[in-house]
Amino acid sequence: MTTILGVDPGLTRLGVGVISHGPGRTVTLVHVDVFRTPATDESSARLGSMARLLATVFDAHKPDVIALERVFAQHNVRTVMGTAQVSGVVLALAFERGIPVSMRTPSEVKAAVTGYGRANKAQVGHMVQRILGLAEIPQPADAADALALAITEAWRGVPAPSGQSGSTTTPAQQAWRDAEAKARRPRLQR
Amino acid sequence: MTTILGVDPGLTRLGVGVISHGPGRTVTLVHVDVFRTPATDESSARLGSMARLLATVFDAHKPDVIALERVFAQHNVRTVMGTAQVSGVVLALAFERGIPVSMRTPSEVKAAVTGYGRANKAQVGHMVQRILGLAEIPQPADAADALALAITEAWRGVPAPSGQSGSTTTPAQQAWRDAEAKARRPRLQR
Repeated sequence: MTTILGVDPGLTRLGVGVISHGPGRTVTLVHVDVFRTPATDESSARLGSMARLLATVFDAHKPDVIALERVFAQHNVRTVMGTAQVSGVVLALAFERGIPVSMRTPSEVKAAVTGYGRANKAQVGHMVQRILGLAEIPQPADAADALALAITEAWRGVPAPSGQSGSTTTPAQQAWRDAEAKARRPRLQR
Repeated sequence: MTTILGVDPGLTRLGVGVISHGPGRTVTLVHVDVFRTPATDESSARLGSMARLLATVFDAHKPDVIALERVFAQHNVRTVMGTAQVSGVVLALAFERGIPVSMRTPSEVKAAVTGYGRANKAQVGHMVQRILGLAEIPQPADAADALALAITEAWRGVPAPSGQSGSTTTPAQQAWRDAEAKARRPRLQR
């Protein structure tokens, strides 16, 4: 079992999602939260608060790996600087603790979770709910995105369930088959 | 006397310049350094190393205020993300220590130090050398820029020497008059 922390960086809202990754594609929710800082606060207070909250999550859950969204300067210039600043803090805090960080692009995450690199927020939220077997879609979107990042990391290099390579199985069907596979091999769960 | 730390953020080269600010426009060099991280290292290692080096400078010199260059997403998109990430780390570390951070734009710094908002690197370096009475121009430019940020912060709100408001005095002449004024009032030095 490995513990994976997904971080959707942002100064206004920062999503953190912790999952436990068992054998194959088995993933379970451990923790999810969204931190906010008021735009009226000074940059230093905003980054400093985010750093404290992040350090608390790092130390409480001791992730084996952190999946961090890779930020591009091209889109959304107005908020990208704050997002990059927060990602810098995440990277520095992770290094301090010896936790490896895996950078993931939004389209990579969408493709891994929904099977479609241009999926919208609702589709991502919906699939995160199904994959983790949650009663509701994690809200706000930053929470679902953080979990989607963690799931992407968990599924990295894990082959799709047997008989599905090159098939037209939908992500929902995959999640269902994973759940079935999970139910069939209880001794591998721990 | 206040201690001011100027930080010119960057992932490849990060300049730090510490000055001591006495009465009026009196400024003296305390420390200057440039940190580098190899582009071949992972982002996490680069940010983590910068964080450690910055923390060492913060704790060794205990600045009363940090002057940090404000980064804009508009120019130099290729390097701006790393620069923003480093600035996030500076802001978080400063908040953790209760040190206020003053954000300064490059043109503000150029105007304060050379009298001209579009001065080039050589002009900034030249004026930093003269203002601080150094034997040489601080090299590389990141070192001079960090000191220029600190000087800008020191001179914030400090009126120009008497008889000069609205005059056509050059920055070099101002620096000279400051030095003269400093020599005339030794009892105010401490």
